[in-house]
Amino acid sequence: MNLDQIFNFAQEAFLSYKNLSGEKKADFLERIAEILEENRSAIVLLAVRESNLPEGRINGELGRTTGQIKLFANLLREGSWVEATIDPADPNRSPLPKADIRRMLTPLGPVVVFGASNFPLAFSTAGSDTISALAAGCPVIYKGHPAHPDTSKFVGNCISQAQQKSGLPSGIFTHVEGGVKMGQDLVKHPLAKAVGFTGSFRAGKSLFNIVGNRDQPIPVYAEMGSVNPIFVFPQRLENELVPLAHSFVGSLTLGAGQFCTNPGLIFVPRTLAERFGNAVSDAMQDVSAAPMLHEGITESYYKSLTELQLRSELEWVKVPDAKHLINASPALAEISAADWMADDFFQEEVFGSFALMVVYENTAELMAVAGKLQGQLTITLWGDRTEFNTHKELINLLEEKCGRILFKGVPTGVEVGYAMQHGGPFPATTDSRSTSVGANAIKRFARPIAFQDMPSDLLPDALKDGNPLAIMRQMDGNWGK
Amino acid sequence: MNLDQIFNFAQEAFLSYKNLSGEKKADFLERIAEILEENRSAIVLLAVRESNLPEGRINGELGRTTGQIKLFANLLREGSWVEATIDPADPNRSPLPKADIRRMLTPLGPVVVFGASNFPLAFSTAGSDTISALAAGCPVIYKGHPAHPDTSKFVGNCISQAQQKSGLPSGIFTHVEGGVKMGQDLVKHPLAKAVGFTGSFRAGKSLFNIVGNRDQPIPVYAEMGSVNPIFVFPQRLENELVPLAHSFVGSLTLGAGQFCTNPGLIFVPRTLAERFGNAVSDAMQDVSAAPMLHEGITESYYKSLTELQLRSELEWVKVPDAKHLINASPALAEISAADWMADDFFQEEVFGSFALMVVYENTAELMAVAGKLQGQLTITLWGDRTEFNTHKELINLLEEKCGRILFKGVPTGVEVGYAMQHGGPFPATTDSRSTSVGANAIKRFARPIAFQDMPSDLLPDALKDGNPLAIMRQMDGNWGK
Repeated sequence: MNLDQIFNFAQEAFLSYKNLSGEKKADFLERIAEILEENRSAIVLLAVRESNLPEGRINGELGRTTGQIKLFANLLREGSWVEATIDPADPNRSPLPKADIRRMLTPLGPVVVFGASNFPLAFSTAGSDTISALAAGCPVIYKGHPAHPDTSKFVGNCISQAQQKSGLPSGIFTHVEGGVKMGQDLVKHPLAKAVGFTGSFRAGKSLFNIVGNRDQPIPVYAEMGSVNPIFVFPQRLENELVPLAHSFVGSLTLGAGQFCTNPGLIFVPRTLAERFGNAVSDAMQDVSAAPMLHEGITESYYKSLTELQLRSELEWVKVPDAKHLINASPALAEISAADWMADDFFQEEVFGSFALMVVYENTAELMAVAGKLQGQLTITLWGDRTEFNTHKELINLLEEKCGRILFKGVPTGVEVGYAMQHGGPFPATTDSRSTSVGANAIKRFARPIAFQDMPSDLLPDALKDGNPLAIMRQMDGNWGK
Repeated sequence: MNLDQIFNFAQEAFLSYKNLSGEKKADFLERIAEILEENRSAIVLLAVRESNLPEGRINGELGRTTGQIKLFANLLREGSWVEATIDPADPNRSPLPKADIRRMLTPLGPVVVFGASNFPLAFSTAGSDTISALAAGCPVIYKGHPAHPDTSKFVGNCISQAQQKSGLPSGIFTHVEGGVKMGQDLVKHPLAKAVGFTGSFRAGKSLFNIVGNRDQPIPVYAEMGSVNPIFVFPQRLENELVPLAHSFVGSLTLGAGQFCTNPGLIFVPRTLAERFGNAVSDAMQDVSAAPMLHEGITESYYKSLTELQLRSELEWVKVPDAKHLINASPALAEISAADWMADDFFQEEVFGSFALMVVYENTAELMAVAGKLQGQLTITLWGDRTEFNTHKELINLLEEKCGRILFKGVPTGVEVGYAMQHGGPFPATTDSRSTSVGANAIKRFARPIAFQDMPSDLLPDALKDGNPLAIMRQMDGNWGK
C-alpha cells in the first residue's frame, strides 16, 4: 500500500472505530496485552538483541508496557475520561428558550506515532503513544524505529492479531518502515490528525517544523528529553553527602544514562562542591562501562564529551574511560554557575551518563539560574524542610520550568498512573499542555464536540439521560454520577 | 513602556498572580463585572457609536459580557476546573516504593489577546479570551481593536480599576494599541505563552504562521469563523418550508450577518429548492439593509458578492440591493452540489448576510459533500426523526467536520455555559481541542504540573490532604470530594 491508501484505510476504519464502546475498546487493548505476554520470550529475545539492554530491564519494560495498556483499558471501562457535560434545556427561559447542549471528547482521527530507540517496548510500537491514541479512538500509523526493526515488526504483528481477534477493521493499526523521508511524508499527509513522538530534540523539532508548513495545522506531541536538573541545598547535602552522591550516580547511569529523565545537571553549593564531586567520582568508579543502544549513540556520546572537553570553563571531576566498542562510561565535569549561565550550550542534553555539576554561590545566584533555565521534563530539589521553606520563591520560579517537580528521590523511574505528568515547557516538549505517560496521555488525541438538541436515541451513551455508563459528568455545572 | 517592559512587568506579576486563590481571583473578576455595569451607559454609548450596532444589541452584549465573567467567577469559586489528581504513595510497594504524586493545572504565563470587531464587548477587551486567561491565572496583554478604540480603552480602564481595587499587580492586564506590526511583535515576544484571537481567517492564519517561526512554540487559539452549513432533509422541509425559510433568514441576517456562526451555506434537496429559494427570497425582502461595523467591512461584503456574480455556476435567487453608505442587504445564490464540490472557492466565508443554497440530488451526494466540507464551528441538520435515523452515516461524518452539531434551531445565539463548544476543526480554528466560549475556555491557558513528594505545607490547597477546597478530585483513579 502507498501512503494515500494507508491513510484512506485508516480514515475509513476511524469512522467506525470511533464509535466503538469503551468496553469493547478496553477488550481490544487487553487482548494486545495478552498477546504480548504470550509472546514474552520471543519479544524479549528480539529486543535484547536489538537494543543491547539487559534481559532484566527488557523483561521489566514489557511488564511496564502491558501495565500501561491495562491502565488505559481500565480508564475506558470506567469511562469518565470523555468529560461528559450536560447543560439541560430550559424551554421557558425568557427572552429566548435555552437549547439542550451536551459536550464530550471525541477522537481526532488517524494519528502518526514515532517510537523511541531507548524504550523498544514501552515507548515504541505498543507503547504509550500508540495505546493512548487507540484508547481515544484514533487509528495509528506507526513508523518502526530503525534501531529495533524486528522487535517493532513483531510487536506490530501482535497488535494486528489482537485487532483481528477483536473483529476490528485492520486500518486501525498500520506498521510502516522507512527513514527520515518516510517520517516527513507521514506527518505531511492531509489525513494525519496528530503526531506522537519520543526522541531527540533535533528530530522532534524538525517534525514540528514540517507540520508547521502543512495547510492544516495539527498537534505535534514531541517529547524531546531534557537535562532534568537537581538543585541541592547545603544543609541536606552536608547531612547526607555520600548517600546523595550514590542516588545521583544511580539515577544518572541507569540504563547507561539513556532515559529522558536522567539528571544531566546538578546544582551544588560552593562550600560542598569538592566533597560532593569526589563522592560522585568515587561512586562512578564502581559503575562499569555499559553498552549503549547502538554504535551511533555511543559515538554521539563521546563526540559530545570531546566538544565539552574543549571548553575551558569546565573542570573534569571524572573523565570518561576511552570509548570501547559501543560501551560508554559515566563522566562528571564542574562549571561555575556564572559560566553556565553565560552560554546556552551548557544546557544542551548529552544523551548518556554524563553530568554537569554547576557550582553556585548563594540563593540569589540560584534565582538567576532558574531564570535562565530552559524547559524541563523534571526538576528535583534536595533539601531539608527548612531549606524548602526558605526557597519558596525559587520553587515558585522552577515550577514554571518543568512538568514535574520532585522533593525527594530521583527523576528516573516515571510512574504510570493518573497523576503523572511526563511533559514540560519547550524544549522538553513541543506542547506543555500534554503528557506522554499516564492516564492523561489519552487526552492528547481527542477534541470536544457539542451536540445541541440531539434526539436522545442518537446521543452517545456517555451523554444519554439517566447516565447509562454511570460515569462522572457535569450537569448544569454540578459534578455527579 | 516598550514591549519588553510590558512583558517583563506581566511576567513579574504572573509569578505572584498565579498563586492567588480561586476565591480572590473570583472577587477580582466580579469586580470587573461590577465596574462594567456601573459604567453601562457610557460603554453602550461608545460601543454603539463605534460599531454601528443597535443599542439593544449592545446592551444585550454587555449583559452577555458580565454574565460570562460571572460564569468564570463561579468556576473559580467551585474550584474543580484544576483537575486535581492524587496518586498516593505506597512505601511498601515491591520492588520499589511508590512516590506520592499530585497533579493539577497551572497557568501558562502571559497571554496575548486580540479582540473581535463584531463583538466590541463580549469578544473584546473584557471578553471571553481576556477573562478566561485571567481566570486561569495568566496576565493578559490586550491589543485594542482599531474598529472600536475608545470602547476598548474605556473597558480596559475598567479592568485596571478592578485590578487596583483588588490590590493586584498592574502587570496582570495591559491595554496596548497599534496595527498589524504591533500584533506581530506581541505574538513574537519570547515571554508570550499563548495567543487568543477572534477574527478573520486571513488575520488568524497569519498570526498562526508568525508564531510558527518563534524559537519557542506556543499555542494559538484563533477562532476564524466559518460558513456553518445547514443540511435540510426533504420531509421536514416539505412540512415546514416557510417557517424554516424564516428561521434561516433570521439567523443569516441577525446583526447584518456579522456572526461567526451565521449560516452562509444551506443544502436543500433538488425537489424543493425552487420553492425554498422563493420563500427565502420573500423573507429577505422584509429585511431592511443594515449598517455593517464599518466601511471596510461593507466594502469587503460587496466585493465578495461581485466576485461571486462573475461565476457562471451561480444562479441568483435574491440579488443584493446596491451598496448604500455602509449598509448591506441580504442575498442568496443557488449552486448545484456538483459545482459546489468542484471548487473550494465556494467554501470561503463571505462575512455578512449572504448565503449559498447548494442543491443536492440525493443522500449519496450529501455524503460526497460531507467528505469535501472543511472544518466548521457548527453544522445544523433540519430533518424529522425518521430522516435523522436514515442519515446516521452522514451525521457520523459531519461530526468530524465541526465543533457543535445542531438538530434544531439555528447556529447563531451561542450559549455561554459548561457544555458549549465554540471551536472546530481547521479552518474554523487553529486548535480544535479548544473552545473560546463557555467554561472550558479557561483550559486553553493552563498546563498540568505534577508535584512529587512535595512537603504537605508547600502543596497548593487544591492538592492538600483532606481536600480543604472541597473540589472534585481523582484519588488513585477514583472520583470524589
